[in-house]
Amino acid sequence: MAQPDLKLDVAGVNALMARAFPDAPVEALPQVTDLAPGRAHIVRAYGGGMLRPGGVISGPNLMSLADTAAYALILAHIGDQLMAVTSSLVMNFLRGALPGDLHADASFLRLGRRIAVCDVKLWTESQDRLAAQATVTYAIPS
Amino acid sequence: MAQPDLKLDVAGVNALMARAFPDAPVEALPQVTDLAPGRAHIVRAYGGGMLRPGGVISGPNLMSLADTAAYALILAHIGDQLMAVTSSLVMNFLRGALPGDLHADASFLRLGRRIAVCDVKLWTESQDRLAAQATVTYAIPS
Amino acid sequence: MAQPDLKLDVAGVNALMARAFPDAPVEALPQVTDLAPGRAHIVRAYGGGMLRPGGVISGPNLMSLADTAAYALILAHIGDQLMAVTSSLVMNFLRGALPGDLHADASFLRLGRRIAVCDVKLWTESQDRLAAQATVTYAIPS
Amino acid sequence: MAQPDLKLDVAGVNALMARAFPDAPVEALPQVTDLAPGRAHIVRAYGGGMLRPGGVISGPNLMSLADTAAYALILAHIGDQLMAVTSSLVMNFLRGALPGDLHADASFLRLGRRIAVCDVKLWTESQDRLAAQATVTYAIPS
Repeated sequence: MAQPDLKLDVAGVNALMARAFPDAPVEALPQVTDLAPGRAHIVRAYGGGMLRPGGVISGPNLMSLADTAAYALILAHIGDQLMAVTSSLVMNFLRGALPGDLHADASFLRLGRRIAVCDVKLWTESQDRLAAQATVTYAIPS
Repeated sequence: MAQPDLKLDVAGVNALMARAFPDAPVEALPQVTDLAPGRAHIVRAYGGGMLRPGGVISGPNLMSLADTAAYALILAHIGDQLMAVTSSLVMNFLRGALPGDLHADASFLRLGRRIAVCDVKLWTESQDRLAAQATVTYAIPS
Repeated sequence: MAQPDLKLDVAGVNALMARAFPDAPVEALPQVTDLAPGRAHIVRAYGGGMLRPGGVISGPNLMSLADTAAYALILAHIGDQLMAVTSSLVMNFLRGALPGDLHADASFLRLGRRIAVCDVKLWTESQDRLAAQATVTYAIPS
Repeated sequence: MAQPDLKLDVAGVNALMARAFPDAPVEALPQVTDLAPGRAHIVRAYGGGMLRPGGVISGPNLMSLADTAAYALILAHIGDQLMAVTSSLVMNFLRGALPGDLHADASFLRLGRRIAVCDVKLWTESQDRLAAQATVTYAIPS
């Protein structure tokens, strides 16, 4: 689609996220590493407590990053609107995510004035072996 | 639907969950409080770090409990099969979850041999004011 | 949840639906058969062209009725607002729907001013053997 | 992802679809127009009875094409396995689909032995203005 303009850069989004989640342990806070119009890349460094039985990254960790990736994508394009809230998140788990840094790539399916719908792809091994795909909808305060 | 029989009791499921997530901080581990054929009730005690901007419980905390509630429901009915894995989770956020103990009620839409589909309702204030509803699908190992 | 009041009765909703879909073949138009605060029951009579390979009712027929059931439920509670539009529909197919009249039971997970989220259960054989479950979200025009 | 090989060509898939839905009115049967490894393009010609109030293509017509697009994609890659069945379909409606031929582009998020997860994008105006996005999961018979 015709892509919307960015309002913030990488440092700006990361600063906003740190402000949004003041209680989060620093090591659990994912970092935006790349932004382009309509697209954001975010990484959560691998750390303890992220695995589930079977030795793969747990579903809640994947869902949490999917949600955060969409939030970062939206903030990058609408600016300092911390009150955007998730209205739905649909997660498809595609294969076990082997231990490693967890990557998410988020892009807009639609950025409207009141609603943003984001496609998020997640992986640890490589972008060719997706661990999960999510569709995340946010309500944007008016 | 005609409800399946329970294979484990409350203490049995809680013991299994503690074994499944040995790294989880004790205070973050939800507890099953009630089981009936086809139904499980689970509670995560309110604690620090659970909020998002706006002072409501964050989406990842709600999604995590939805996933765990479905897992507990399934384990209660199929027994010690820790390798059951989430294949999809659909979360609808209905209203902000005010700070407080987080409750989830999980029931089967279908318990098949290979697939279980669970409906999960979540709230803090009261069951009449749902914070979220999830549909969680697990693949059951054969 | 505390249930909202009905604004229309069964005949009123059916008349509205017939007006909303003037092109629909009469036999394909489902009929609301019961309404209660927060709940609607709707039936599509079994007819030709509804099956898929395997001799069960096709997915699109089930999805269509799920969407219509949610629409009827919403109209019953907000009145003559034909411009309510589906914003998302999540369908879980639980077992094959044997040929027969197709029933749907819709209830609110939340009826807000701008958004309604509905749970819909579908079956042909009996309500104890669900063929599918849907979560349907509508945007309500202001 | 590394893309799977095609087992059928465009004519082969269209023949299979016509066989799968012998009752479907010819004009309602979408046609596959392009296939590539991991990807299928399908079109339903615009015709009467496809609109909903507001003059846009109705949700059930969009959902039906999303389901059919995923089915065609899967058949193209696994061959003559008509018994593949949808296990879930998640539809996000992004903007009204103006009257016109309805296009769908389906690609694999994952093609496993038992499960295929497909991403489907739908539009009438142009691929830059999506009307809807779906994630469709099929169970593949063994």
